[in-house]
Amino acid sequence: MKTLVLLSGGMDSSVALHWAARHTQLVAALSVDYGSKHNGRELAMAGLQAAALAVPHEVIDLPWVNRCFRSDLLQSGGDIPEGHYTDQSMQSTVVPFRNAILLSMACGLAESRGAQAVVIAAHSGDHAIYPDCRESFMLAMAQAMRLGTYAGIELMRPFIAMDKAAIAREGAALGVDFSKTWSCYKGGELHCGRCGTCVERREAFALAGLVDPTLYAQE
Amino acid sequence: MKTLVLLSGGMDSSVALHWAARHTQLVAALSVDYGSKHNGRELAMAGLQAAALAVPHEVIDLPWVNRCFRSDLLQSGGDIPEGHYTDQSMQSTVVPFRNAILLSMACGLAESRGAQAVVIAAHSGDHAIYPDCRESFMLAMAQAMRLGTYAGIELMRPFIAMDKAAIAREGAALGVDFSKTWSCYKGGELHCGRCGTCVERREAFALAGLVDPTLYAQE
Repeated sequence: MKTLVLLSGGMDSSVALHWAARHTQLVAALSVDYGSKHNGRELAMAGLQAAALAVPHEVIDLPWVNRCFRSDLLQSGGDIPEGHYTDQSMQSTVVPFRNAILLSMACGLAESRGAQAVVIAAHSGDHAIYPDCRESFMLAMAQAMRLGTYAGIELMRPFIAMDKAAIAREGAALGVDFSKTWSCYKGGELHCGRCGTCVERREAFALAGLVDPTLYAQE
Repeated sequence: MKTLVLLSGGMDSSVALHWAARHTQLVAALSVDYGSKHNGRELAMAGLQAAALAVPHEVIDLPWVNRCFRSDLLQSGGDIPEGHYTDQSMQSTVVPFRNAILLSMACGLAESRGAQAVVIAAHSGDHAIYPDCRESFMLAMAQAMRLGTYAGIELMRPFIAMDKAAIAREGAALGVDFSKTWSCYKGGELHCGRCGTCVERREAFALAGLVDPTLYAQE
């Protein structure tokens, strides 16, 4: 099956890229710059991951998200909150309906490139605070993709039954270089070590029993 | 209910704009330039329709659709076919998953602006050749919008049980100035009078018993 992978440059989607290269006929990776504070850091890593597999890498800018939408994840928003991901404070980092926008773009591009499926790295640990990460949303979106395209594009979620630690183990088995992935929402020189995504990244490596190659600003 | 209307500048969405202004609390109209041959003509009309109602009008460019997607509707595609809309030849004008991309953008923008619903002018005459115009797709997308947002954004389709002639009559009753709407896919100086959308536009006015204010290049 020919596939297109949504690639942010984080841990999960980088593993999804390598998974798709191993198990499907991977035709392209799509990364989107929607104006988040960490998009620049992420996209550099996405480029390295795609290059490592010699996969065509499409990077699309959506400058209007930063201009028109309200979210602290965006450059136009307030500070990124610190603490554990499950904290209610992280709700300020929701970008309204972001995953639907990314999946719609990926689906249209997949059909234009002759692919039959879009791969997204959604997983069981995706957070209740993000409505467009929940499996109920993914099922509805998958239905819209199947019905709204000639090819009946599928939405593949190979990690949906796995947690982030299991994905890290899968990535290690696939030879993913995790030093070339980015998580921190603050998008600074180093991973901050304190925001929700940094806390979660550290936990995943620890739970997976893997060496964490990340240099954190605060240990 | 606060609403946001997807406004192309064609007949149907211009009527939807006036319908929403009459029956809901209309907070914004969204128009998207995705690089079709007729976007320039349409968007000028969309601007006039929004201005007539003093509705905030957001215009967003998606230059990558024209670059990355394949469709004869796009500036990068081949010639627009002529003849009746139902002809199989019109299939070349499908822009893959376009309505999902537009609805996802509208839904995220609606949530950012505090609206509770997105209005789209989908109608019973929308064509079998466009998978993302079918009601089965709209139902799945409506579910994705409801589940993927905090506000549970609704997808309103007030014309879903009407045909284009009925929409024209509704527009006339609402005082829509149809001379300030654009349909022709070719995007020339005048409506060509021969492409699928021109044929359909003419038929709608005739069936509705309305004077067609359009100047066609070919009668």
